[in-house]
Amino acid sequence: MNCLVCYRLYTTVKIRLPAVCSMTVRVGVVGASGYTGGELLRILSTHPHVEVTVATSREYAGKPLTAIHPHLRGFLTGLKFSEVSVDLLTSKCDLVFVNTPHGVSMTLTPELFKTGLKVVDLSADFRLKEVEVFRKWYEVEHKAPELLDRAVYGLPELYRESIRGASLVACPGCNSTAALLSLIPAVAAGLIDLDHIAVDVKVGSSEAGIKPSLGTHHPERANVMRPYEADGHRHVAEVEQELSKIAGRGVKVALVPHAVGAVRGALATSHTWMVDKSLDETSVWKIYAQRYGKEPFVRIVRGAPFRYPDPKYVIGSNYADVGFAVENRVGRAVFFAAIDNLMKGAAGQAVQCMNIMLGFDETSGLRYPPLRPA
Amino acid sequence: MNCLVCYRLYTTVKIRLPAVCSMTVRVGVVGASGYTGGELLRILSTHPHVEVTVATSREYAGKPLTAIHPHLRGFLTGLKFSEVSVDLLTSKCDLVFVNTPHGVSMTLTPELFKTGLKVVDLSADFRLKEVEVFRKWYEVEHKAPELLDRAVYGLPELYRESIRGASLVACPGCNSTAALLSLIPAVAAGLIDLDHIAVDVKVGSSEAGIKPSLGTHHPERANVMRPYEADGHRHVAEVEQELSKIAGRGVKVALVPHAVGAVRGALATSHTWMVDKSLDETSVWKIYAQRYGKEPFVRIVRGAPFRYPDPKYVIGSNYADVGFAVENRVGRAVFFAAIDNLMKGAAGQAVQCMNIMLGFDETSGLRYPPLRPA
Amino acid sequence: MNCLVCYRLYTTVKIRLPAVCSMTVRVGVVGASGYTGGELLRILSTHPHVEVTVATSREYAGKPLTAIHPHLRGFLTGLKFSEVSVDLLTSKCDLVFVNTPHGVSMTLTPELFKTGLKVVDLSADFRLKEVEVFRKWYEVEHKAPELLDRAVYGLPELYRESIRGASLVACPGCNSTAALLSLIPAVAAGLIDLDHIAVDVKVGSSEAGIKPSLGTHHPERANVMRPYEADGHRHVAEVEQELSKIAGRGVKVALVPHAVGAVRGALATSHTWMVDKSLDETSVWKIYAQRYGKEPFVRIVRGAPFRYPDPKYVIGSNYADVGFAVENRVGRAVFFAAIDNLMKGAAGQAVQCMNIMLGFDETSGLRYPPLRPA
Amino acid sequence: MNCLVCYRLYTTVKIRLPAVCSMTVRVGVVGASGYTGGELLRILSTHPHVEVTVATSREYAGKPLTAIHPHLRGFLTGLKFSEVSVDLLTSKCDLVFVNTPHGVSMTLTPELFKTGLKVVDLSADFRLKEVEVFRKWYEVEHKAPELLDRAVYGLPELYRESIRGASLVACPGCNSTAALLSLIPAVAAGLIDLDHIAVDVKVGSSEAGIKPSLGTHHPERANVMRPYEADGHRHVAEVEQELSKIAGRGVKVALVPHAVGAVRGALATSHTWMVDKSLDETSVWKIYAQRYGKEPFVRIVRGAPFRYPDPKYVIGSNYADVGFAVENRVGRAVFFAAIDNLMKGAAGQAVQCMNIMLGFDETSGLRYPPLRPA
Repeated sequence: MNCLVCYRLYTTVKIRLPAVCSMTVRVGVVGASGYTGGELLRILSTHPHVEVTVATSREYAGKPLTAIHPHLRGFLTGLKFSEVSVDLLTSKCDLVFVNTPHGVSMTLTPELFKTGLKVVDLSADFRLKEVEVFRKWYEVEHKAPELLDRAVYGLPELYRESIRGASLVACPGCNSTAALLSLIPAVAAGLIDLDHIAVDVKVGSSEAGIKPSLGTHHPERANVMRPYEADGHRHVAEVEQELSKIAGRGVKVALVPHAVGAVRGALATSHTWMVDKSLDETSVWKIYAQRYGKEPFVRIVRGAPFRYPDPKYVIGSNYADVGFAVENRVGRAVFFAAIDNLMKGAAGQAVQCMNIMLGFDETSGLRYPPLRPA
Repeated sequence: MNCLVCYRLYTTVKIRLPAVCSMTVRVGVVGASGYTGGELLRILSTHPHVEVTVATSREYAGKPLTAIHPHLRGFLTGLKFSEVSVDLLTSKCDLVFVNTPHGVSMTLTPELFKTGLKVVDLSADFRLKEVEVFRKWYEVEHKAPELLDRAVYGLPELYRESIRGASLVACPGCNSTAALLSLIPAVAAGLIDLDHIAVDVKVGSSEAGIKPSLGTHHPERANVMRPYEADGHRHVAEVEQELSKIAGRGVKVALVPHAVGAVRGALATSHTWMVDKSLDETSVWKIYAQRYGKEPFVRIVRGAPFRYPDPKYVIGSNYADVGFAVENRVGRAVFFAAIDNLMKGAAGQAVQCMNIMLGFDETSGLRYPPLRPA
Repeated sequence: MNCLVCYRLYTTVKIRLPAVCSMTVRVGVVGASGYTGGELLRILSTHPHVEVTVATSREYAGKPLTAIHPHLRGFLTGLKFSEVSVDLLTSKCDLVFVNTPHGVSMTLTPELFKTGLKVVDLSADFRLKEVEVFRKWYEVEHKAPELLDRAVYGLPELYRESIRGASLVACPGCNSTAALLSLIPAVAAGLIDLDHIAVDVKVGSSEAGIKPSLGTHHPERANVMRPYEADGHRHVAEVEQELSKIAGRGVKVALVPHAVGAVRGALATSHTWMVDKSLDETSVWKIYAQRYGKEPFVRIVRGAPFRYPDPKYVIGSNYADVGFAVENRVGRAVFFAAIDNLMKGAAGQAVQCMNIMLGFDETSGLRYPPLRPA
Repeated sequence: MNCLVCYRLYTTVKIRLPAVCSMTVRVGVVGASGYTGGELLRILSTHPHVEVTVATSREYAGKPLTAIHPHLRGFLTGLKFSEVSVDLLTSKCDLVFVNTPHGVSMTLTPELFKTGLKVVDLSADFRLKEVEVFRKWYEVEHKAPELLDRAVYGLPELYRESIRGASLVACPGCNSTAALLSLIPAVAAGLIDLDHIAVDVKVGSSEAGIKPSLGTHHPERANVMRPYEADGHRHVAEVEQELSKIAGRGVKVALVPHAVGAVRGALATSHTWMVDKSLDETSVWKIYAQRYGKEPFVRIVRGAPFRYPDPKYVIGSNYADVGFAVENRVGRAVFFAAIDNLMKGAAGQAVQCMNIMLGFDETSGLRYPPLRPA
């Protein structure tokens, strides 16, 4: 069941319905002209409990959404891009998605937060709990350190209960989401050697955002298998923070992202060595099934013919497909998590968090299958 | 059923709730293991008025849908593929989508039809009205010529009213849908020279179906710009049939499809010469706007920065984006229609037809934006 | 210099070695940091008769070629980018490839030309013979109209003999090369109705050059079927100029280019109607075979399983694959020409022209098969 | 290179011309209708010292090469596919490339070998030195164990001198070539912890060969990030064999290949932990530069803007681009090797081996830059 009442009811607000029928929130999207912004608008445009009231963009302020989002023609037709304004957001919204580059959110979010607005932040500014760790990885001083404790890390599979009551949620990066979902059960169950974890990530081109550059120029970006930030990607900090919490000790991770030939998708391949080198796949499966069995957006992949997770089969959806393989000969295990980087890796997860924060069904506006083939 | 109250209820605001809340039809999909079959299942799995009760596949009978549709993991979970059986279909379904190769449907569909089942046929078997034309293009004898008159050509933009009362709808091919949607208003308005129409079609690889071949093998199919059936593609017959009806005279079309580097999408580029060589783009726009202005799934594309239709911006949706350009210097006009070949070109349009046939809101289960970027 | 003697010498074994072994020309590339520039460097780096002495780039002056051409690592290792300087070019080169945006060449080329340097111009500045036509299409005043008559249109299949003695050759655009090669024999033989020619062109992303933009940003450019400049692309002017010469009367062409999902390649699909509607494919084939039979870089494609030309099968090479289909039912014929837009559509053809101008074997440095699969 | 006399002749200037100008070997390709076969034919068709006399294919025997290799139109025009025949091969060839599935070569190769023919084997049959290891990984009994010692592992960077005198060379797999080239210097220099090596490989679709399947069907294969054989790929056996030899102790490797969205290319990303955790990148660079500095087909990639190896920039060439990154924070290093899987990963390396075996310049027929953009 997607929701109790249909979308139109609440936008027209003409028909009386039971108590739940009137539950609609007014939502703003700060940073709405990029890919994650467009994806938020796409999801929210058919979300049964949401009315999008503000969409900001410096570059496109005053223009219709279709000036940069041609796919949205016919949707959210009354809405135009506006400049970022705290007054506007507080007057017209109940909840705001802050989708800015890191460093910008930590100025804006505190202003919104203190007005009582709920905020789902998609930037990196409130993910790390320790100011020094943030400074080290992002090379700027944090401007709102007092909020770090208030912000809940927006991975429902780890923090569902905390998100429920939160006013500020900091959504994980797409690489981090994939890396964490692949490893959480293994680390929690003490399956693997915590000193040798190598996470090899593959991502599609949309991960780089909408701003053109030589690296994303089609002739250069097509068909690549291109490592980047191989000596330490910033998302490592989140992954290490969360895995360390789970493990109860410091965990360091070797993580290398690779741009590969796709528009959407992120796959984390986590190479590990097992503590008990004789453990078989069925045992591993039980541990993963137990951990993720009731998760609405995690699907465990096992068995032919589609044996391992592939982001291709979650495109357009909020699902994370998780799987693994064990090679006892070497005493190793490899864990996979496949997501759509713009959905479970960004906008979809943000809406999932919003649903939890506001008491909606967690899957509202998100429960539909991936697109295939795509 | 996905939600408690249907979309249409709230848009019309005229129908009493309780009576309709239970309105669900039982639907079968014959030929459910291919791409169009998978797309039907994807749409129907979240359609508010549909319960999918049968999905047939010779190859996968007895197996779960995920044996070939990995994206559907978690959806329609109780359903398994079954063999084609008229008894099964009549006992468990109110309406059946027949999605077989041409030549097969004309045997099965009459059997279903005479039991009173409603049929939406996605094959080519009931599109052509004249038996001789069918024989010529498909090189087989038609086995159910008596049904040709009963079948309504399933292009709602042409036959909405006839579809409403129909028991058998024959959905157009994807090339035909794109070609027709690009040309209908121009032909109806007498804008163009009917003796020189060249429709150049580009399609993604999913158009060829799920069966592998050398031509669809990734290393051979990637990056192609490959003409095929350049001396007369079968879909021409439908296009000529419908354009001739509109024009009130015989119309012949030069149509050449090309495989290009994409998975989804079909673009018809219809090169024409104008009767009034001084007609400007605004005049053409008025004609197209008048014709398509109220169509729920046709969007007219005009103006920068996304100036002409591109299937890329309708991917995953049932929209057809239509546009055009005029070059008075040469006295010519070119008309474009961009669709997702599996949606407006196949499964989406079939569900649109079903909605109309059954009196649901025409957009039920289909009203969501395209995926972008994809 | 890579080797002392050209390929032809040794395969024919008829020409004495010493006389030719020392034949090397010093070549400069103006505009060497883009894709066509990189392709010129790639070809010339192993050309048996060429020493590349100058490669200019404003942006990369002073830097090694690998600053922008990573594939050239290990080739032309002594060479660095330099600023454009007439003095430098005249002192260090015998022949210069001018590969600038249109409007720039018409200032530089005359300066080079008057010093006696031979010039192969890849810009649009010297392709059109009439000043007014140039002004109309390019919307600037020509600064060197006196050279228009001196410049030979660099399509060897039309102007081989004139190129042989030329000091200034103006290479065709990639769309024009494909359009012309598809149509020349048909027009020359009077096969087709000259009033209704629709050329539908498909091109890969490298056609747009190396400068990033939203339209070439990978997430936007991948999987497109995107028409552009549909109301009159500039390359039409060349095509009409040359076809008119061949036909002996004015010919106007409806030409619409489309960006499709590939990095390299251009396909011209020329839709036409035949004068003699009963003419069969064999007759057409004879006309094409007669015209192109001895062309070193035109291959006629006919017969299964690779029935029509596809740029995919000329990638990385200087070949143009030409083919056609006839549909007598409609009295129409469609002609195809497939090229690698950076090779036969730009750098390869430029080197072919250079070979002819300088009396080398026409295939020097260019005679190797396409890359497949690619 | 395009001439009959090899590059080396002219660079060294030590060998008399006439004597060598006639040096041509007659070469056969067994298994010529697939991608590696086609690539061998492509290279050999312009190799200055080779005449291709036999090309076998069961499926296409009697047909011209263009029946399956459309890119070769105009090359090797006298040659047709023939059945495999030892008599034919011995009578018409000096050297044979055996390019069959594993299990077939171990029957054919001994027959060819005993007639005195030189053999370059591209199958897996003679790569492993120990019969038991072969049995374990390939699950068949070896039929010619006596030849295992005679076969030289065809990685010139490891065995150049042995290849020089060899009559039987067993070329490495593409994954193995990339994995080994990334790791050899690090293992040889004792840089890394040999108990924790995780090699994450990404490959293009051509790696799967020319035979269509659902997994390589374009709609399924496009845009994938698909792990396969994650619990132990056969190429691991070679990698472990060679690394163990270098290390002087047993080395086990965790290797997981991934199909990604490209036609050509293979990237090995070797995640490792360093023995001396304070070693910096410059020190690593020195070790790699020393090992590979004189290798004709290994290029070390370092420094912006193309900082790490990417197969994209070796496409169509025999180069392996090697690079690395060090993260002292974690005490780890990651090593990359990028190759064209059909060139340095198969046909190119096989020709390189042939050149060495026959005393030609090692780069004959192979010294040209990659194609870019592609």
